[in-house]
Amino acid sequence: MALGRFACIVLAMPNLADIRAAHAIIRPHIHRTPVLTSSSLNREFGLELFFKCENFQKIGAFKARGATHAVLTASAAEVQGGVVTHSSGNHAAAIARAAALRGVPGYIVMPSNAPRVKVESVQRYGGRITFCEPTAAARAQAAAQLQDETGAVLIHPFDNDAVIAGQGTAALELLEAVPDLTAIAAPVGGGGLMSGTALAATELKPGIEVWAAEPALADDAARSLESGVLQPPADSTTIADGLRTGLSERTFRILQGRLKGVARAPEELIATAMHRVWQTMKILIEPSAAVPLAALLAGTLPARGRLGVILTGGNVEPRWP
Amino acid sequence: MALGRFACIVLAMPNLADIRAAHAIIRPHIHRTPVLTSSSLNREFGLELFFKCENFQKIGAFKARGATHAVLTASAAEVQGGVVTHSSGNHAAAIARAAALRGVPGYIVMPSNAPRVKVESVQRYGGRITFCEPTAAARAQAAAQLQDETGAVLIHPFDNDAVIAGQGTAALELLEAVPDLTAIAAPVGGGGLMSGTALAATELKPGIEVWAAEPALADDAARSLESGVLQPPADSTTIADGLRTGLSERTFRILQGRLKGVARAPEELIATAMHRVWQTMKILIEPSAAVPLAALLAGTLPARGRLGVILTGGNVEPRWP
Repeated sequence: MALGRFACIVLAMPNLADIRAAHAIIRPHIHRTPVLTSSSLNREFGLELFFKCENFQKIGAFKARGATHAVLTASAAEVQGGVVTHSSGNHAAAIARAAALRGVPGYIVMPSNAPRVKVESVQRYGGRITFCEPTAAARAQAAAQLQDETGAVLIHPFDNDAVIAGQGTAALELLEAVPDLTAIAAPVGGGGLMSGTALAATELKPGIEVWAAEPALADDAARSLESGVLQPPADSTTIADGLRTGLSERTFRILQGRLKGVARAPEELIATAMHRVWQTMKILIEPSAAVPLAALLAGTLPARGRLGVILTGGNVEPRWP
Repeated sequence: MALGRFACIVLAMPNLADIRAAHAIIRPHIHRTPVLTSSSLNREFGLELFFKCENFQKIGAFKARGATHAVLTASAAEVQGGVVTHSSGNHAAAIARAAALRGVPGYIVMPSNAPRVKVESVQRYGGRITFCEPTAAARAQAAAQLQDETGAVLIHPFDNDAVIAGQGTAALELLEAVPDLTAIAAPVGGGGLMSGTALAATELKPGIEVWAAEPALADDAARSLESGVLQPPADSTTIADGLRTGLSERTFRILQGRLKGVARAPEELIATAMHRVWQTMKILIEPSAAVPLAALLAGTLPARGRLGVILTGGNVEPRWP
């Protein structure tokens, strides 16, 4: 879509009122997660950090927010055949749980090589799993076939305004808990959380710096926002597997003009940052959640002021002994 | 020591007033750790669990309580040469930190094969490390030599009333947070925490069940309390390395008559229980801290009522990827 220099279009997108409304709807069904601080990490990084612990959220990740909001606010006609998604990650468990809350079938398409723990997580919430070949095409086809057969509605993991408004409630709670933040940072993959965060934060607190953080190995959001043209994601091997996805037109449009910047995190610092949080704070976070801290370590995210960081999830299975 | 049937002796031991006094002294220097619950674990175990999260304590373990109390309440004459200990575990870091708080040298004797992370932890708090051969005799000798050379006072990790009173503050806080517990459980090694817990709980809430939990591979406390005669610890290979120590006469005497029982945890369930907590609660606990839950899994600790469990520490280094 090319816009002329003087073209002006008004595109609807969720605003703070939508995010507050989403919060009222999902609040009974999610945790108001704590905001933790660490004097050790503050000393080490040279700023004041406030961690919004979505690793303690239902299903172990912020995805419970958006999925719950989207499923609970869909019309009865839309969900009468159930809901379907083809995420293999945290969104899958979130949709399974939200469908159970709504009392409709939750169909989850998962690749045949999905880790056992993810399969079990979806099953625990009552999700009905269809396995498919581990390709994007096979997943999309299986989901489309399920929609045809069951009438279930597809809930996209990020390209969905209700999902985005739900994800924005994490930043809302964080800014309610720590109103004098000077900056807020979150990881960016498809951009659902980042969009909700940017929308909530910039409207609640004009002037706050909103930072996205992204693995350098999956920097499509940085390339898109720097070039002004949506860039497709490259195949990525980053360990931050939740962030391999690219932005959609919708999330790209929301993020344009709302971010202070996109900080790239060198791959080797992602695990380092994750382990620092484990060791210092004694909480489990997954690799994707460590990306903003990895960017701080690398200096691509500037260390200053009072920075809120959304620790997006804790679904990782460390080994010991 | 054999007592005749009608012998009666009065032996001083810390009481609730001592534990409250200890709390007043150490409170500014420790965390009031949170009490967390998990609806998933409650469902799984079939009772109501309340976890006192000492993994979030300063130095990552409850040991900060007793060490701080002992070092801060020692007389100026006692500590003018500093303090010394020969623990290689959490007590070492706790003494190093407490010595720094008091402004006196903290000498720590550690085996030459101590894990790097433990050495770094002691160094971070300013502890002065003397390495020795990795035998109990070498450690004791090195500590004695340091006492001679420096005049430092030895702070034993558990055979010390001030340490025991300090450890009792964890149960005090737990029962303040959840007054209607029906039972409380903690792991037992040397018995410092267990003694403080039993003293605090039975005096605060007569009738509460106090359970110790112990690796089956290091069950000297169970054997001692069952036989009525203090049993020496066997060499143990349990992964709950903090619990390989045996009781002292002092802690044995305190625990006699104050425990509902000592529950043995099968070795293979300790890691299982630890991983269940990691995965469900997204918090890191060390193997020793998982022993009460492992006993619950085994059924040696009965699953009923409202059970407070002290999660003793989080100093473990899991691997990922």
